[in-house]
Amino acid sequence: MIVIDRERLAELPLLTLAAPAIRDAYIAVTDGRANLPPVGYLPLPGRNADCHIKYGYIEGDPIFVVKIASGFYDNPAKGLPSSTGMMVAVSTETGDVVAVLDDKGLLTDLRTGLGGAIATTALWRKDAGSIGIVGAGTQARIQIRALASLSNRPLRFTVWGRSMERANAVLADLADLGLPIAATTDLEALCRQSDAIVTTTPSKKPLIRSAWIGPSTHITAMGADAPGKQELETALVARADRLFVDLAEQCLDHGEFSAAARAVVIQEERCVALGAVLSGAAEGRRSDNDITIADLTGIATQDIAIARTVLDELGLLGRSQGTTA
Amino acid sequence: MIVIDRERLAELPLLTLAAPAIRDAYIAVTDGRANLPPVGYLPLPGRNADCHIKYGYIEGDPIFVVKIASGFYDNPAKGLPSSTGMMVAVSTETGDVVAVLDDKGLLTDLRTGLGGAIATTALWRKDAGSIGIVGAGTQARIQIRALASLSNRPLRFTVWGRSMERANAVLADLADLGLPIAATTDLEALCRQSDAIVTTTPSKKPLIRSAWIGPSTHITAMGADAPGKQELETALVARADRLFVDLAEQCLDHGEFSAAARAVVIQEERCVALGAVLSGAAEGRRSDNDITIADLTGIATQDIAIARTVLDELGLLGRSQGTTA
Repeated sequence: MIVIDRERLAELPLLTLAAPAIRDAYIAVTDGRANLPPVGYLPLPGRNADCHIKYGYIEGDPIFVVKIASGFYDNPAKGLPSSTGMMVAVSTETGDVVAVLDDKGLLTDLRTGLGGAIATTALWRKDAGSIGIVGAGTQARIQIRALASLSNRPLRFTVWGRSMERANAVLADLADLGLPIAATTDLEALCRQSDAIVTTTPSKKPLIRSAWIGPSTHITAMGADAPGKQELETALVARADRLFVDLAEQCLDHGEFSAAARAVVIQEERCVALGAVLSGAAEGRRSDNDITIADLTGIATQDIAIARTVLDELGLLGRSQGTTA
Repeated sequence: MIVIDRERLAELPLLTLAAPAIRDAYIAVTDGRANLPPVGYLPLPGRNADCHIKYGYIEGDPIFVVKIASGFYDNPAKGLPSSTGMMVAVSTETGDVVAVLDDKGLLTDLRTGLGGAIATTALWRKDAGSIGIVGAGTQARIQIRALASLSNRPLRFTVWGRSMERANAVLADLADLGLPIAATTDLEALCRQSDAIVTTTPSKKPLIRSAWIGPSTHITAMGADAPGKQELETALVARADRLFVDLAEQCLDHGEFSAAARAVVIQEERCVALGAVLSGAAEGRRSDNDITIADLTGIATQDIAIARTVLDELGLLGRSQGTTA
């Protein structure tokens, strides 16, 4: 068993390396290769904290992964990040622990960013050029980096933050990309001008109104991943031409689409699995005029995919697979 | 985060150190301090393998624990043990991973052994001296070591194995204890002569017949921990005066008592929680003549208890609690 720390992981070009594996992570769910048990949930009463335990298996893989992801909501007051985590990669040959990835949430951030960019580039209008990013946190930054990495044509970004200070901080952090990125606090204007929008906030009430979204827009909704979170007006979800999900049971239960499902303005039958689009088994966008929305809540196959990519890149799979290093 | 390997853990006198914490682990379940979500289960189709993920929280504890326990049933053919595992101890203050206990199942073996010995010494007749151990594997050895450690009076052991060779190997391994231990392949004789019996086999059909068990005997059934396993004749469970469980929902679903529950010869109301006996909230043995049976399936609070004991002994809790070492 070896331990790989966050600093070492941050040196790897994972937004490039892991993209094919993350793409396959969605397909594995729809073609029957993935075994995804329900996510474990451990609340810590009296600590204002909880922990999610995600685990799963992709048939034929050399490893499976158990991920521990914690939310400690009093941490910021102590100067610590509110979320952290780690992954344990276990050999599917022997059960030995191959590696502990002490990533403190980095790999989750990266696989989430790649998932969003894969959905966005699969579902946007083919000539989309103006991209709106809603939110100014970690995931806003990673979505831009992942889209810049995956797209083969020039993109212009606008970042919305609750303050110009926060939005401008994103621009400063991404200066190395050399891309046209603007900052705004005018969410309506961002929505009206964007061909594709990626939402990344922890909002608990809808930020984006249906009236602001014109035909042909694609939206990837990343923020809502727990009961009570919502970024898009329910009427917008109801009105969309095509709805896409990473996993319908999660999205309709506690994702962006859950409010619309509870209001019975959408049904599960309308939700197309992203994996089926990526594999060609289902249609994605049908016309330039379609409004498309993808709701991503995160699935354990993404964790397996990025962990496998790391271990492969570090030479820890292959012939020595399954032995403890 | 620090990693503590099996060799370092094996040096600690945990059968002594962890006994009070394991005792409390049972009480925590009955006095409302424990949060025990359902055990996660990940089968690996095509690998003849599976993985259990156990996690839980005891109110007020400095850590919680996520345990990964794998069974790879083709491993013995490769010269590897069929079961392995590890524990991750997470700070309940910050969510940081305090330590990875790379115990390869050792801590599970020890906490299981201590649990058995705590149940046996709480429920046997007060003058019990002759102890029968059914099985000749790892858990047979640990049960004897734990009973020798916890009991304050002299005990005589008899070990039953399917062969004299296997039973004698237990005696050889325990020679350092300096205790009277005999080996046998006559299970009926062992049952008829023992005041208390501890069963530790993976048997899938009853080994111990009701007719062999006289009044005043106590039995601790450790082996049955999955659907289809059974060590005691169902009639014996039905006939017992008092039945005890670590966790009724587990014991009646996939423990020793599950066959009797399915046959509707016992009901949940008859099952008394071991923790309630240990805390004094419920009666244990009521008379010298009672036949008592305890069914232990293993609970996450035991994992927390032994992990906390390890970290405390190594000075990793206390003032630095919650920070990564």
